[in-house]
Amino acid sequence: MNHSELFNNIVQKKSFLCVGLDSEIDKIPSFLLRLKNPVLEFNKRVIDATHEYAVAYKPNVAFYESSGSEGWLTLEATVKYIRKKYPDMFIIADAKRGDIGNTSKMYAKTFLENLPFDAVTVAPYMGEDSVTPFLAYDGKWVVLLALTSNKGAGDFQYHNEDGIRLFERVITVSKKWGTPDNLMYVIGATRADQFSDIRKIVPEHFLLVPGIGAQGGSLQEVVKYGMTSKCGLLVNSSRSIIFADNSKNFDKVAGEKAGEIQREMSQYLAERNLI
Amino acid sequence: MNHSELFNNIVQKKSFLCVGLDSEIDKIPSFLLRLKNPVLEFNKRVIDATHEYAVAYKPNVAFYESSGSEGWLTLEATVKYIRKKYPDMFIIADAKRGDIGNTSKMYAKTFLENLPFDAVTVAPYMGEDSVTPFLAYDGKWVVLLALTSNKGAGDFQYHNEDGIRLFERVITVSKKWGTPDNLMYVIGATRADQFSDIRKIVPEHFLLVPGIGAQGGSLQEVVKYGMTSKCGLLVNSSRSIIFADNSKNFDKVAGEKAGEIQREMSQYLAERNLI
Repeated sequence: MNHSELFNNIVQKKSFLCVGLDSEIDKIPSFLLRLKNPVLEFNKRVIDATHEYAVAYKPNVAFYESSGSEGWLTLEATVKYIRKKYPDMFIIADAKRGDIGNTSKMYAKTFLENLPFDAVTVAPYMGEDSVTPFLAYDGKWVVLLALTSNKGAGDFQYHNEDGIRLFERVITVSKKWGTPDNLMYVIGATRADQFSDIRKIVPEHFLLVPGIGAQGGSLQEVVKYGMTSKCGLLVNSSRSIIFADNSKNFDKVAGEKAGEIQREMSQYLAERNLI
Repeated sequence: MNHSELFNNIVQKKSFLCVGLDSEIDKIPSFLLRLKNPVLEFNKRVIDATHEYAVAYKPNVAFYESSGSEGWLTLEATVKYIRKKYPDMFIIADAKRGDIGNTSKMYAKTFLENLPFDAVTVAPYMGEDSVTPFLAYDGKWVVLLALTSNKGAGDFQYHNEDGIRLFERVITVSKKWGTPDNLMYVIGATRADQFSDIRKIVPEHFLLVPGIGAQGGSLQEVVKYGMTSKCGLLVNSSRSIIFADNSKNFDKVAGEKAGEIQREMSQYLAERNLI
């Protein structure tokens, strides 16, 4: 998928919502636990209930890896389920990988070749040769960490050399490694005040924005400072959708929550004449 | 294992060698491919041939993950094999993980609770709450990326605020999160000139040093600037040991290569009256 195709999907769905599948087994409704693969069943039901309101899904690899080989099978089955049933969906492996070149090449193969993900989140600390192996796949994307939504973002991401903060340097340097068709950035919604500065460096690139919902970021602020003429935003919500309810109706409630966000998004897109 | 126990093992073995198990299936001797689990068999033979010269093993998770659920079973079997047969061995999951707190907690559980690793490599970009969940396990370690051995290390790790480079800030800030008993740093051997500056910040902490061998770093230089009165070094070598030979004798040759490095290490330890 390229930048235009992603934008087309956003226009079609009137949504730039990404649903995070942080499907922790201790948090899913207990009635699912008697099924053969509770997490997979949970994911399928959440996906079926939310797909019309979302353009992207983002399974968080940590929550699958923690169940070892079984967890990997669940991750694989989840991605394949989405790919088959909703082929236009943009699927992001939230893996935060990154290592020396020959190792990053293996991580890239895992997520972008062996598994049918469209994109993988990558940590920038180790620089160019840790990131570019993920950019070697046609139509696939790197989602590079720049300014994250957590408290610890303040520890290093603002390290400032001559007025250039680390997250700005990460964006400035890395944008030469890819294009707006294969590279986007993680920018936390809890830092909406920074979006204007970021848009000066990457006026076109898509930004993947976590932190709406459970982490407290405001969608309105993100749109105000971050939206481009081709939307340029994927806004992620995980726990506040998938764990909104713990009853037998959890999927219906997840769908309602996703629908609420989609309607708000639709309004912002309409206000800017993008739909 | 704590700092003293690790040092005791180094004294006993007269070695501070860590053998990296970057066991890529395309690089292992082809005669192993007809076995049921070629990578596991390769690992077992390498481990049995090198164990007397090494104090640590470091499976690189990327090379297992790339085989999906099968690869996870191989990783699990490898760690359990080492743990059972050579119980004093320090085993590092080279995973380069790191995410917001609730996600890092899941990664920590995977490697330090579900799997019997002693340590896991962690990327620092997301700051304190991405690292501390890994420090919550008694006797287990975080190996935090500081100054890496690859070319891309130059892209961001030297970002300099008022004379403090990013890797120095990472060490200075993070050393408050743990102690020399549960926190060590990755410092590439290709940057031996930086060891003196790093030792001013962390005079006692263990440093895990990759880049000897295939990546071209010098063991002598690392020892000269990095060794402490309790050794304070684990030096890793992967490809130049495990892929030194591709014949039926690959394990014997791996043992010889490890033995050569161990003898050089033994000499350095003796010169400093540590053994």
